[in-house]
Amino acid sequence: MEKVEVFKIGGNVIDDEVKLTDFLKDFSAIPGAKILVHGGGKIATHVASSLGVETTMIEGRRITTDEMIDVVTMTYGGLINKKVTAGLQSMKCDAIGLSGADGNLILSDKRPIKNGVDFGWVGDPKSVNSDLLVDFIEHGRVPVVAPLTHDGSGNMLNTNADTIASALAVALSDSFDVHLNYCFELPGVLQDIDDPTSLIKDLTLALYTKYKSDGAIADGMIPKLDNAFDAIKNGVSSVRIVSHKSIAKLENKHFDDYTNIH
Amino acid sequence: MEKVEVFKIGGNVIDDEVKLTDFLKDFSAIPGAKILVHGGGKIATHVASSLGVETTMIEGRRITTDEMIDVVTMTYGGLINKKVTAGLQSMKCDAIGLSGADGNLILSDKRPIKNGVDFGWVGDPKSVNSDLLVDFIEHGRVPVVAPLTHDGSGNMLNTNADTIASALAVALSDSFDVHLNYCFELPGVLQDIDDPTSLIKDLTLALYTKYKSDGAIADGMIPKLDNAFDAIKNGVSSVRIVSHKSIAKLENKHFDDYTNIH
Repeated sequence: MEKVEVFKIGGNVIDDEVKLTDFLKDFSAIPGAKILVHGGGKIATHVASSLGVETTMIEGRRITTDEMIDVVTMTYGGLINKKVTAGLQSMKCDAIGLSGADGNLILSDKRPIKNGVDFGWVGDPKSVNSDLLVDFIEHGRVPVVAPLTHDGSGNMLNTNADTIASALAVALSDSFDVHLNYCFELPGVLQDIDDPTSLIKDLTLALYTKYKSDGAIADGMIPKLDNAFDAIKNGVSSVRIVSHKSIAKLENKHFDDYTNIH
Repeated sequence: MEKVEVFKIGGNVIDDEVKLTDFLKDFSAIPGAKILVHGGGKIATHVASSLGVETTMIEGRRITTDEMIDVVTMTYGGLINKKVTAGLQSMKCDAIGLSGADGNLILSDKRPIKNGVDFGWVGDPKSVNSDLLVDFIEHGRVPVVAPLTHDGSGNMLNTNADTIASALAVALSDSFDVHLNYCFELPGVLQDIDDPTSLIKDLTLALYTKYKSDGAIADGMIPKLDNAFDAIKNGVSSVRIVSHKSIAKLENKHFDDYTNIH
């Protein structure tokens, strides 16, 4: 089966012009079929506050009010998505920027109110239009996907980029040999967050369960790894947690400074 | 040859929720291959002023500074484009929102400084990737195009929506029987702007030249009609200037309350 590499970058890369350009250069040079999913960034909070839209976070998640969904649609789907797409086009990578509404790429359920918490216009993906992705891949086009989906009733929904990357990877795994790469600022999952030499190079579900009960793996890493193991369980060939600075080295068989999830 | 209808709507429809929804319902019901090009709207000026970005107009055109290109990329490429796309998707129209950067749809030249006027990040289209449009049309997808292009060097460019609609129509006219529809608030081109019964139903280039020298046709209508005649000269089958309220009637052979350019 043909290989497809799915990469996800977060706000820390997007917010830094130099890091972003370096990443896009490395990404554009990777041969074969690939997809880029990007997260948000500080720009949404800046635009929101300028427009007088208050940012409310509950458990580290943005509450997406009527005004806030407009702000994230503007910034994630407009500014960031087009900046990344135009940048990749200048590097001869045939990028095509998409939200989940475009071509019905990702249909989501609006998250129900739970324990009295209403996240607002937040969506959890329920279906992916893999025909659209397959068509792009067959034509050598490179989808660049913003963390936005739609509900099928005309509303955009704010959606976690890690979850989108996992959903796209799973949807393609029927037709392709899919490798999912979560890129972030550290070399991978660390046993001790303060010690960069404590990299966990191989992480199985059994080991993950142990590290979670130890408390070695905690906080924001848990939903990311839940998405990773979910992808593996549903047909994705491998998931790597890797530094955004190292993606050019992934083609090198001797390079193993990342967390491999299997 | 298969028929393709290209529609262009402007800010007056986009700024009015009821007008926009009514238009999208009519548009989604039109059978066969179609493309929608949308203009900007007041939202860009509102977002710009909230962000402290000053709006400067010269000869009715927005000067697009570094800050302003970000604002129009956000609002045209993000908010408006995705609102229209999600709306059409909810009406079972398989819309796919695009800027000129996406899939290298429209490559532009940054407009050179002329007579001391620097329009900033404004682009004039020089090539259209018609393969991308043909691929969408063959799959029953409906491109929804924002008034943004790119320069191939990583920069987005603010681009007139009438010009984009004309460029796309011309690019498709090698492969399709293309009809271009400029939708706006009047029934068509009027001989007397204050008299809605003075509709010019048929407009030839000779007649247009006469009306221009008379002063009957003036101001904003001139660049629109220049784009229209340019399209006709370059292979587009017909151009209609029509009310955004009337597009459902265009399929009716007895309906002729619009300006037909040929």
